Amino acid sequence: MRMSVFPTEEFQMRMTRTKKKMAAMGIDILIVTDPANMNYLTGYDAWSFYVHQLVIVMLDEDQPYWVGRAMDANAARHTSWLDEDHIYPYADHYVQSALRHPMDFVSDLLKDKKKDKKIIAVELDAYYFTAKCYIKLVQSLPNATIRDGTNLVNWIRIVKSDREIGYIRKAAKISEKAMQVAFDTLNEGVRECDVVAGISYAQISGTEEYGGDYPSIVPLLPTGKKTSACHLTWTDETFKQGEPVIIELAGCYKRYHSPLARTAVVGMPSEEMQNLGEVVVEGVNAALDVVKPGVTCEEVEMVWRKTIEKHGIKKESRIGYSMGLNYPPDWGEHTASFRSGDQTILEPNMTFHMIPTMDLGHVGMEISESFRVTENGCEVFADFPRDLYVKPNIRLA
Amino acid sequence: MRMSVFPTEEFQMRMTRTKKKMAAMGIDILIVTDPANMNYLTGYDAWSFYVHQLVIVMLDEDQPYWVGRAMDANAARHTSWLDEDHIYPYADHYVQSALRHPMDFVSDLLKDKKKDKKIIAVELDAYYFTAKCYIKLVQSLPNATIRDGTNLVNWIRIVKSDREIGYIRKAAKISEKAMQVAFDTLNEGVRECDVVAGISYAQISGTEEYGGDYPSIVPLLPTGKKTSACHLTWTDETFKQGEPVIIELAGCYKRYHSPLARTAVVGMPSEEMQNLGEVVVEGVNAALDVVKPGVTCEEVEMVWRKTIEKHGIKKESRIGYSMGLNYPPDWGEHTASFRSGDQTILEPNMTFHMIPTMDLGHVGMEISESFRVTENGCEVFADFPRDLYVKPNIRLA
Repeated sequence: MRMSVFPTEEFQMRMTRTKKKMAAMGIDILIVTDPANMNYLTGYDAWSFYVHQLVIVMLDEDQPYWVGRAMDANAARHTSWLDEDHIYPYADHYVQSALRHPMDFVSDLLKDKKKDKKIIAVELDAYYFTAKCYIKLVQSLPNATIRDGTNLVNWIRIVKSDREIGYIRKAAKISEKAMQVAFDTLNEGVRECDVVAGISYAQISGTEEYGGDYPSIVPLLPTGKKTSACHLTWTDETFKQGEPVIIELAGCYKRYHSPLARTAVVGMPSEEMQNLGEVVVEGVNAALDVVKPGVTCEEVEMVWRKTIEKHGIKKESRIGYSMGLNYPPDWGEHTASFRSGDQTILEPNMTFHMIPTMDLGHVGMEISESFRVTENGCEVFADFPRDLYVKPNIRLA
Repeated sequence: MRMSVFPTEEFQMRMTRTKKKMAAMGIDILIVTDPANMNYLTGYDAWSFYVHQLVIVMLDEDQPYWVGRAMDANAARHTSWLDEDHIYPYADHYVQSALRHPMDFVSDLLKDKKKDKKIIAVELDAYYFTAKCYIKLVQSLPNATIRDGTNLVNWIRIVKSDREIGYIRKAAKISEKAMQVAFDTLNEGVRECDVVAGISYAQISGTEEYGGDYPSIVPLLPTGKKTSACHLTWTDETFKQGEPVIIELAGCYKRYHSPLARTAVVGMPSEEMQNLGEVVVEGVNAALDVVKPGVTCEEVEMVWRKTIEKHGIKKESRIGYSMGLNYPPDWGEHTASFRSGDQTILEPNMTFHMIPTMDLGHVGMEISESFRVTENGCEVFADFPRDLYVKPNIRLA
């Protein structure tokens, strides 16, 4: 009944790389709470990250340990490559209780395994590793040395295997379909929620050959002046003529994402929006052109920056980030970003979402691409017109 | 351009209650990172909780402070009731950086406001308040006293206003529609992902009168033996004859949820499933019958327990929890649970999801209801048949 997304050998290779990095950093035990890192090392896949759960990697063991709520142990059995000896469910009275904390269970497990005097790294700044988890661990393992292992696994995830790239390509096909649905359905008088409903249908239904998974971020759809607030979702208001709308979405396949953002205008765009659209596309094109192994992330951003500054436009925030496997609330990997100061050197099969979010205060714009670094350049995942989209207004026709 | 979900008076009342509780606990400053608590106190609503953001409540100020990424300040302006003086954006170089942490910005803000020697409470076990946030705060505010404020606001949220109840009723209408779509579309040979796509369409499109918001949890749809792993999502496999499927979903309106779970079988259910369905419904009916103000949560669970034990069935995990306003990854409020030892006394306008998740090892079942406590009983939100659903198999007809 295993639902194997990757062969066991791929998980073993990930474990080998993780343990190699742990050894180099002098870490005996790594406690992983980021759901994407848990999935990466074990295959575990369920919507259970709303309770405390984690994976423990020990330098001297081939398999990691899964620790989670008893109710979710069967999900570990169905989705992970771990044997029964490496699945450690905790009782339900630990769940959201003021009396007990799951990290007490973890401490007891480490004591049982005689690992409580070791050098233990935790993901200090990862989602779902709360301050309380840390405090409990420090209190109950007084003889351990607690270190920071934030992003240790994320930096291994940054270079994808060919199988992972295959999954992202499948996700990209879904992102094309979903964006096309958005363009086909948005129109003056149509409710935002009805367009997003169609996007979501396309994201989950996927293609005839394969279904879609849930993206780590819901479709973002700010309209009009709200395009200057890029992380707004949607309302049940209707589209107005001449107003811009940002559509940011991702296709997702087996937790692998291919994000895509476009901006559309129903009816005639303002001259300002038209000009901005041309500058953004020129900037993205220039930045993508410079991508290849050996180039640094900040060099890519610099090319973008110089291109738009020729047109008198400035932008402070980063223009992209590493992405791939993930869970809510983010499809970004929290490693490399395209921004000044980021000297990450591009390597083949690194995958990024290049998304220069423009904010003019009263209006905003997004035109993005997801891509992988190839041997000598880049492969853009989605095949979708890279433009400001002008929706013919049928009421005016 | 404010998108006001509640009148300012309602936010002020929430602030008054929060500050009263802070005063009673000897807390000067409360730092709120749970996105639902942030929304509750300010109205702030955007998919930006993947970066560090928070709300600061000071005993001596009427309005809280919003702190977030510069890119999201416009979202605060659009969605919150705060004036410009209470919106504090941090620069983009704090985002997912190894060099800087947003909590440094927060410490500087508290020093500027001469609040760095106060008693400051943080939500130690809330989503998105990472260990790193805590460590940074403790390091940079050596003269402050840091206390635990976990669930302080959640316990205020547990009793809803009539306006909040109105939103949950609207969410319940959406949950009925979405569940009906699931029942209408699932059939032998149909892909799970296509059924979930229809569910998601219904959740977001909502009704003709109002649109739906994104639920904090995606539809859960374990099938066959995987029904014993209740937090699995879906695949692109097709439904098989005689196999059970659990459908857990919620309608959501302006971040307020009304969850609903049902179990269906395509074709003939096994005798075991039929019997289990009858027992679960009898147990839920009995537990709902005993709900009224003055009863404790553990008394409700005890009625359930005694009812199913008459049929020789036992269950260890809790059978429900307080719910309402929320963001991913959970619609539960992390306060009261229906379980042994929970002595929370029911009050009018508390709202719960009663969901006894059954797991027989080889198969599982969920039949749930969301409800509010009324003056003398309970109001079940969704009007949907409370039964194991048997889907007539058209191929057999």
